[in-house]
Amino acid sequence: MGKFKDECGIVAVSMKNHIDVAELVFFGLNGLQHRGQQSVGLAVASGGVISCYKDTGLVNEVLDEKILTLLKGDMALGHVKYGPETESFQIYAQPLVINYKNGTIAVAFNGALTNGESLRDEMEDNGVIFSTKTDCEVIAALIARFDKGDIGAAVKKAMEEIKGGYAIGVMTENAIIGARDPMGIRPLALGKINGGYALASESCAFDMMEGDFVRDINPGEIVIIEESGVRSVETGCNPSRAMCSFEYVYFARPDSIIDGKDVYAVRESAGRVLANECPANADIVIGVPDSGTPAAIGYSLEAGIPFRQGLIKNKYIGRTFIQPTKLQREIGVRIKLNPIKSIVEGKSVVLVDDSIVRGTTMRKIISSIKGVGAKEVHLRICSPPIRFSCYFGVDTPDIKDFIASDHTIDEIKEELGADSLAFISTEGLLSSLGGSATDCGTGYCTGCFSGEYPIEP
Amino acid sequence: MGKFKDECGIVAVSMKNHIDVAELVFFGLNGLQHRGQQSVGLAVASGGVISCYKDTGLVNEVLDEKILTLLKGDMALGHVKYGPETESFQIYAQPLVINYKNGTIAVAFNGALTNGESLRDEMEDNGVIFSTKTDCEVIAALIARFDKGDIGAAVKKAMEEIKGGYAIGVMTENAIIGARDPMGIRPLALGKINGGYALASESCAFDMMEGDFVRDINPGEIVIIEESGVRSVETGCNPSRAMCSFEYVYFARPDSIIDGKDVYAVRESAGRVLANECPANADIVIGVPDSGTPAAIGYSLEAGIPFRQGLIKNKYIGRTFIQPTKLQREIGVRIKLNPIKSIVEGKSVVLVDDSIVRGTTMRKIISSIKGVGAKEVHLRICSPPIRFSCYFGVDTPDIKDFIASDHTIDEIKEELGADSLAFISTEGLLSSLGGSATDCGTGYCTGCFSGEYPIEP
Amino acid sequence: MGKFKDECGIVAVSMKNHIDVAELVFFGLNGLQHRGQQSVGLAVASGGVISCYKDTGLVNEVLDEKILTLLKGDMALGHVKYGPETESFQIYAQPLVINYKNGTIAVAFNGALTNGESLRDEMEDNGVIFSTKTDCEVIAALIARFDKGDIGAAVKKAMEEIKGGYAIGVMTENAIIGARDPMGIRPLALGKINGGYALASESCAFDMMEGDFVRDINPGEIVIIEESGVRSVETGCNPSRAMCSFEYVYFARPDSIIDGKDVYAVRESAGRVLANECPANADIVIGVPDSGTPAAIGYSLEAGIPFRQGLIKNKYIGRTFIQPTKLQREIGVRIKLNPIKSIVEGKSVVLVDDSIVRGTTMRKIISSIKGVGAKEVHLRICSPPIRFSCYFGVDTPDIKDFIASDHTIDEIKEELGADSLAFISTEGLLSSLGGSATDCGTGYCTGCFSGEYPIEP
Amino acid sequence: MGKFKDECGIVAVSMKNHIDVAELVFFGLNGLQHRGQQSVGLAVASGGVISCYKDTGLVNEVLDEKILTLLKGDMALGHVKYGPETESFQIYAQPLVINYKNGTIAVAFNGALTNGESLRDEMEDNGVIFSTKTDCEVIAALIARFDKGDIGAAVKKAMEEIKGGYAIGVMTENAIIGARDPMGIRPLALGKINGGYALASESCAFDMMEGDFVRDINPGEIVIIEESGVRSVETGCNPSRAMCSFEYVYFARPDSIIDGKDVYAVRESAGRVLANECPANADIVIGVPDSGTPAAIGYSLEAGIPFRQGLIKNKYIGRTFIQPTKLQREIGVRIKLNPIKSIVEGKSVVLVDDSIVRGTTMRKIISSIKGVGAKEVHLRICSPPIRFSCYFGVDTPDIKDFIASDHTIDEIKEELGADSLAFISTEGLLSSLGGSATDCGTGYCTGCFSGEYPIEP
Repeated sequence: MGKFKDECGIVAVSMKNHIDVAELVFFGLNGLQHRGQQSVGLAVASGGVISCYKDTGLVNEVLDEKILTLLKGDMALGHVKYGPETESFQIYAQPLVINYKNGTIAVAFNGALTNGESLRDEMEDNGVIFSTKTDCEVIAALIARFDKGDIGAAVKKAMEEIKGGYAIGVMTENAIIGARDPMGIRPLALGKINGGYALASESCAFDMMEGDFVRDINPGEIVIIEESGVRSVETGCNPSRAMCSFEYVYFARPDSIIDGKDVYAVRESAGRVLANECPANADIVIGVPDSGTPAAIGYSLEAGIPFRQGLIKNKYIGRTFIQPTKLQREIGVRIKLNPIKSIVEGKSVVLVDDSIVRGTTMRKIISSIKGVGAKEVHLRICSPPIRFSCYFGVDTPDIKDFIASDHTIDEIKEELGADSLAFISTEGLLSSLGGSATDCGTGYCTGCFSGEYPIEP
Repeated sequence: MGKFKDECGIVAVSMKNHIDVAELVFFGLNGLQHRGQQSVGLAVASGGVISCYKDTGLVNEVLDEKILTLLKGDMALGHVKYGPETESFQIYAQPLVINYKNGTIAVAFNGALTNGESLRDEMEDNGVIFSTKTDCEVIAALIARFDKGDIGAAVKKAMEEIKGGYAIGVMTENAIIGARDPMGIRPLALGKINGGYALASESCAFDMMEGDFVRDINPGEIVIIEESGVRSVETGCNPSRAMCSFEYVYFARPDSIIDGKDVYAVRESAGRVLANECPANADIVIGVPDSGTPAAIGYSLEAGIPFRQGLIKNKYIGRTFIQPTKLQREIGVRIKLNPIKSIVEGKSVVLVDDSIVRGTTMRKIISSIKGVGAKEVHLRICSPPIRFSCYFGVDTPDIKDFIASDHTIDEIKEELGADSLAFISTEGLLSSLGGSATDCGTGYCTGCFSGEYPIEP
Repeated sequence: MGKFKDECGIVAVSMKNHIDVAELVFFGLNGLQHRGQQSVGLAVASGGVISCYKDTGLVNEVLDEKILTLLKGDMALGHVKYGPETESFQIYAQPLVINYKNGTIAVAFNGALTNGESLRDEMEDNGVIFSTKTDCEVIAALIARFDKGDIGAAVKKAMEEIKGGYAIGVMTENAIIGARDPMGIRPLALGKINGGYALASESCAFDMMEGDFVRDINPGEIVIIEESGVRSVETGCNPSRAMCSFEYVYFARPDSIIDGKDVYAVRESAGRVLANECPANADIVIGVPDSGTPAAIGYSLEAGIPFRQGLIKNKYIGRTFIQPTKLQREIGVRIKLNPIKSIVEGKSVVLVDDSIVRGTTMRKIISSIKGVGAKEVHLRICSPPIRFSCYFGVDTPDIKDFIASDHTIDEIKEELGADSLAFISTEGLLSSLGGSATDCGTGYCTGCFSGEYPIEP
Repeated sequence: MGKFKDECGIVAVSMKNHIDVAELVFFGLNGLQHRGQQSVGLAVASGGVISCYKDTGLVNEVLDEKILTLLKGDMALGHVKYGPETESFQIYAQPLVINYKNGTIAVAFNGALTNGESLRDEMEDNGVIFSTKTDCEVIAALIARFDKGDIGAAVKKAMEEIKGGYAIGVMTENAIIGARDPMGIRPLALGKINGGYALASESCAFDMMEGDFVRDINPGEIVIIEESGVRSVETGCNPSRAMCSFEYVYFARPDSIIDGKDVYAVRESAGRVLANECPANADIVIGVPDSGTPAAIGYSLEAGIPFRQGLIKNKYIGRTFIQPTKLQREIGVRIKLNPIKSIVEGKSVVLVDDSIVRGTTMRKIISSIKGVGAKEVHLRICSPPIRFSCYFGVDTPDIKDFIASDHTIDEIKEELGADSLAFISTEGLLSSLGGSATDCGTGYCTGCFSGEYPIEP
C-alpha cells in the first residue's frame, strides 16, 4: 500500500543436543514475516554438514512439515526477504551457503553496503567469482577470504572492509555468529531458549519461540554462539549509534524491543508528541491500520479526543501487493480498508498514519472517508516528510516519486484532499525515541527525512 | 481460535448488458471472506445458460483471473462457506446448480433448517434424489417441485414448507431471488450498483463493489431482481423479528449495517454497557483483536480508563485453523497473539473479548499477559455466557464443551486465571442492540445464551 | 493427436474385511488411465457410509497418499473420464453419489444413452431434479426411483428404460453392481482378487491389481457382488452382440482381453489382413506409435517386409492434448514423433496406423518422414474410413471434420501426401475380430464406418 | 526401473535479432528430457544482461508460457539434469550463472571431472568461494580465473586444467561456447537453425527446433558461436576418441546421431550381433520397452524369429521413479510393464533388453511373463555385464550392487529365473559401433564393462 518495503529478517538458534531446532526457527520466522514476504530460507547444521532449503513465498508456504522434517540439526539459521522485483527468483533467497578452503558457511543478511560494488570489483580482480550481485555474497566472500580457522576473526576483518547499515547472521559447522554494523543502523538481538541461544532481527521472534530476550547486539559488536556459550568479539571499529528511526515508525512489529526501546511505546509516544505539536479541533481520532493505530491511540490520549476504529481492514488480502495480478491491482483501497459510516458521518476526524511515501493510497482513504460523510479530515503523520533515499537496506523509490520531494505541505494537503495536514517534526520524533540526532552516541538515522546520513552513502 | 465458525456468505449481482458481473461478485465475496473460508463458488447466467465454478480455498485462491474470464454473464451468484470438516470436499461448495422441468437454477444458502431432514425424507419418498445431505439441496428440490413457471411463487411455496433461520439466494436464467426466514434470523440486504441491483449477506459487500446499501430484506420477504427492476413477493408468513444477536457480537464485519444497525456501533455500545454493568479498577483496557477491539474501545470510553493495543496479532497466519497440519496446531497462541510487555507490565488490565466458547485460547492469552508482568487481569466479555446450541446455521460444539455449561462464573474465572470475570447481561446486550427479547417484533435471537429460541429447534 | 478421445473407465473392488480396497482401485485406475485423462473419482463404502473424492487430473495426481489414507473401506468404485471441454470442471467427475429414500449409491458410467434426454424430461416432469446434464445422473435417478430395497431389481428396471451403449458400476452400502447394455457395445469384465471380486472396463486393470480375469459381463447382464458372493440377474432384455469395434482398433489397451478376444492379437491380425488386402512394394514397415505398432508388426509378418521403429515418440509430453496452452499447441508433431533418418532415408516405407479422423496429424507425419529422405510412403490404415458419428459414448467430431466424409480415398492420399493409401475393408476388420456384421448375435458395431447402428441413434 | 540415470543435457541457440530464442531452446530441451528429469534451467542473454530461471521438475512444468515470456534474448542456454537425491533441491539446477571481473557467464555441464576436487581445493586455497560442490562450478571458476577478455582462450586454459569426460556449454553476453573433453566421452553437436547456430547434447534436439544437424564437436574442440559466425579454437590437447558406449546402448534417444553414428542403427545392429553370438531356439522375440525394442527388432531380423510386442508399457507413469512416494514405490512392475498373455502363452520367448544393473526389475519381468504362461524365457542383453563404476558423468551404484559383480552368468540366470542368459561380447558391441577398444583413435569407452578407462579415474 505504498509503504517502503525492502527489509529482511534473520533468526538463528543453537541448542546443543536438540535436533529440531529448524522447527523453532520456523516459529521465529513466522514472527518476522512482516520484514519480508518475497522468499524464505532455512539452513541447518548437523554433524558438520550444512543443508539449506529456500524458495519464494511465505514462511508457512515454503517450510512445510515435510521440509522441516528433512532439516534436522542442532543449529539453524533462517531468513525472510523482501527485495526488488528483479530479485524475486528463488536464486536470491537467503541464507547463502558457500564452500571454501576452511569449510562451509551459511550467511544471512539484512541491510545494504555502501561500498559493496567496489569490494566486489576488488575481489573479482583477485579471481573471486559471484553467483549474484548481492551484498550478502560480498560479505560471504570476505569472510571466506579472511577465515584462517578463526571465524570470529574472519568476520571482524570482513567488518573492517565493509561500510553500510547491516545485521549479519553466519552459521558455520559448529557456531553461529551475529554482527551488527558500527552505527547500529539495522537491529539484531540476542535471546535465550531452553538452555540454548538465539539471534533475531527483532525480539518478538524470541516470543514466538517461547524464549527470552537477553539484550541487543551492540553497534559494531560480533557475538559468537558456540557449544561453550556466548562470547563477544572486540571489533575496535569505534562504534557509535544511528539506529534507523523508520524501524520504529513502520518496519518493526509493535511488540518488539529494539535497542532497549519498546516499538509500541515509541509509536504511542510519537502520537502524543504529534498531538502537542499539531493539535486539531476534531470529534474523533482514527488510525490507518495496522501501523497507524498505536500513534492514533497516543494522539487520542494526549488530545483528549476519543479514539475510534473508523477503518476496517480486510485481513484476508494482506499479500495482494506481493504478487499482484492485473485483477488484484484493480481492487481498490476499499477492498482493503473500508470506512465505517456511523463512526465518521458528520464528524470532524483526525486521521493518523505512520508515514506518507507517494500519497496515492492516502488520497483514496481520505476520499472514502469523506464519501461516507466525514465533515473534515485532519491528517496527522507520525514521521517527518520523506524526501531522501535510504542507502542502508530500504529499497526506496526514486526521489521524484516521494510526494514530499516536490510539494509543499500545503500542496500535499490539497493533493490528498485533507482539510489540514501536519507531520511530526524530526525533533519530535527523536524525543519520542528518547534521543537526538545531534548526539550521535545515542542517536538515530533520520536520513530519509533530513538527507543527513550517519555515514557517507 | 475457539470461536464459533459455521457461517456462510451470499453475494449476487444483476446488471443488464454488463458481462463482467462475475468480477463484481468476486470483489463482494472478498468482503464476506470472514463468513466462510472453507470453499467458494460463483455461478453466472448468460443467454439462458448457467455456469458454475467452485472449489475449496479462499476467494482469491479459487477465483483467479483465468476462471473469472471464463465466467461471463450479466447475473452472478457467489457464496463463501464454512462447514464441518466432513463437508470440506469441493462437492459441498455452493452455489448448488440443479436442472429440472422448468429450467436450471443456482442456489446459495446461509443458515439451517430445523425440518430439513423430514422434508428430505418426504421428498425421497416421492422419488427425489439428492447429491448431498445439505439443507441447501432440500430447498433447491422444493423450489424445483413448486416451480410451474413463476419462480417467485415457487420460492414462496418452498418457504411455506421449511422452518429455520436462513437467507437464500437463487439465480434463474433471467432473475435473481433473495429470501430471508420469517424471523429474520440470518441477515440479507439489498444494494444498488451502477444501474443494477445486488444482494449480500452483509452491507460491507456493497462497499467492496462500489455500490450502495439500499435496505435490509425484511423477515419473511422475497425480493426478485429482474430486468424490469426489483419487486417484493408477499409471503404472508406472519413475520416477526429474531435476528441472531451473535452476528452483531462476533460474525459480522464491523463496517456492515444489519437490520438498520451498525455492527461497530453495537459493539462499542456493548462495551459501554459492560463498563457500567461490570466496572473494574484498572490502569488500561485491552481488546482481544480483532473482534474484541470495538467493545474494548467502548469500555474504555465509558470507564475513562485508557485503551491500549496490548496484544499484537500476526496477520500472516489467519488461515491456520482452516487446514491445520500437525505443525500449525502446535503453534501456540503467542504466534498469533503476542502481548506487549511495556504496555501491561505492572499494570492492572481490563481485557475485553466478544465471547468465550471453550475457554482454551483465553486461558493462554491471560497466561501470556501475566507472563510479561501484568499485575491483574480483569476479563470482561461482551456477550452473556454461551450455554446452548444454535439450530439456525451456526455449528456450535457439544454443549459439554462450552466452559459455561458446567462452570459457575467464579469457576470459569479460576479456570482461565483471571483476577475477575464478568459477562454482559442479556438485557445489556439487547440494550446495545436497541431492542429487547420480550418484544419479539423488534427482538433478537439469544438462544445460545438463554436456551429460548424464536422457533422450536 | 487427432484421435477420438471420449471414453471412460470403471474399476470396482469388493473384498470383505480389507479396508485398503481404495488402494487397489487406485492401481486398477492406473491401468485404465488411457480411457480418460480429464478427471478421476474414487468412492468407498465403509460401515454403511459412502465417501467420495474426485477432481480433474490424472490418477496419480488426484489420488495421492493422503487422499487414499482418508478413503478407507472394503468396497470401492473408481472412474476415469474423458469428456467434452464443457465438462472439464470437477463437478462432472464420477462416480456420482446420490442420496434417496432407500439409501446412498455411487454410480460410474461409460457410454451414452440415446434416450437420455427424453428420460430426463419425463423424470423432471415428476419432480426429479438434476445436478448435471449427464446420462450418468439419469441412470442414477432411475435406479433411485425403482429401488424398493432390492438394488438388483432396481438396476434391472432402470435398464428396461434406457437405450444405448454402456457399462455401469453401482456401489451401495453393501454391494457392488455391474451392468452392460443389451448389445454389449461398451465392455465390462469380472475379476477375482485375493478372495474378493472386481469389475473393470478392461481386463488389464485386474493385472494391475494382481488379480485374475474371470469372464466378460454378458450383454444385458447384471452382476451383483455381495458378501455372499457373485450372482447374476436375469434382465430378459433379449441380448444380442454389437461390441464397439473401435475399442479393438484404438481405445483399449493391447494387453486387455475384451469379449474373449485379445486386443493385441486383433490388432496384429488386422495388420495381416491389411497386408493381404492392400499389399505394397516397399522396403520397410513402420507403425505410428503407440496404437499403430501391433498392426504394423502384423503387416510386416504377413508381407515379409521387415518391421522397423522409424518414428520415435517423446514419452514426456503425452498429456499435451489434455490442457493445451498456446505454446504447447505450437509444438509441432516432431516434438512428439520424430522420424529416424537412417531407417527411412532412400527407403520405400509402408506406414501403418490404426485410423484417420481429420488427417491433420498424419499429413505432418508423412511430411516429416519424406523430409528425412523416404523415397515413398505407402499409408495403410487398420480401420475402414470413418464417415459417421458415434452415439454410444464416443465424442466424435462433426461429420464434416472427418476427412473421409467428403474426400475419396484418392483425394485423401493427395491431401496427406502419401504415395499410396489403403484402408482395411469392414469385412477384413471383422474377420480379424472373428465375427461378422451381418451376424448380429456374435457381431460388432461398425457404425462409425458404415452408418449402420445396432440400435437406432 | 533400475537403469543408470545420472546424465544431463545441454541445448544452446544463438540467433541474432530474434528475441524468442528461449522458446526454441524450450523445444530443444523437450527433445532431451530423457537425459534429465530432476531439474531444468534456461538462461538468456539480451543486451549484455544474462537472466536465468531454473527449478526442479520437467521441462513442460518448469518453463511455462509466463516464464518463457519473461526470458527474452537472442541467445539462450538450457539444461536438463539428473543427479543424486542429495542434489535434488533447485539450488543444484543449471545453468550456473556467475559474475566476475570480466563479466557474467552462464555455464551448463554434462559429465564428471576426475580432478574436480583437487582443483576446487587449489582454488579455495587462493580464496575462491563456491556455492555448491559441483564440477560445473569448478569449471566456471576456472573460466572466470583465466578470462582476460578472450573467452575462447579462457575456456581453453580451463580445459588444460580439468580431466574427465564432459561437454560444456558457456554463454557470455555476446557468444555461446561449446566444448568437449579430449577423449570425446560425452557427446555434443553443432546445428544450424534459421540463420543461427545451435549446440545440443544430441542431434534430436535440432529436430525439435526444426533445425539441422551440422556436425559433432570433435574431442577436445572448442567452438565459439558469435555474431560473425562459428569458429573453432585449437586446444592442442592431443585429442583421441573414447565416446561412452553406454550412450548408444541406453542413454541417447534412438533418433539421435552421435559421432556420425545413428543410435537406432547401432542398437538394431547390436541386436543382430547378439543373435549371431548367442542364438536361441525360440518362437518369438520380445523387447523390454522402450530401450530394448530396437535391439529386439535386430535380433528378430537376424535370427528369423518373429518380433512381437509382448510387454505393454503404461505411458502415464513414466516419472514415478523421480519423486517416488511410498505408494508409488509399491506399484509393482506390472503397473509399468504388463505381459500380453496371448502372445507369450505356451511360447518359447527371446527377451531382449539393453542392459542389466541390479537385476531386480528383470526378475519381476521374467516372473510376470512366465506367470502368463511362457514356456521358456531366453534373456539376451545388448551390452556386456556391468561390473565397474563410471567416473565420467554417470552416477553408478556401488559395485557390490551390480548383479554381475559377484555372480557368474549362470548364477545371474538362476537369480533372474531365465531359462538361458547371454550378454553381447564387448567385441560384439564395438563391432555394432564400427570401432574397437584397442584402437583408441576411433574407439569407445567400455569402462563399466571392462574396468579399463580411457583416462585414469
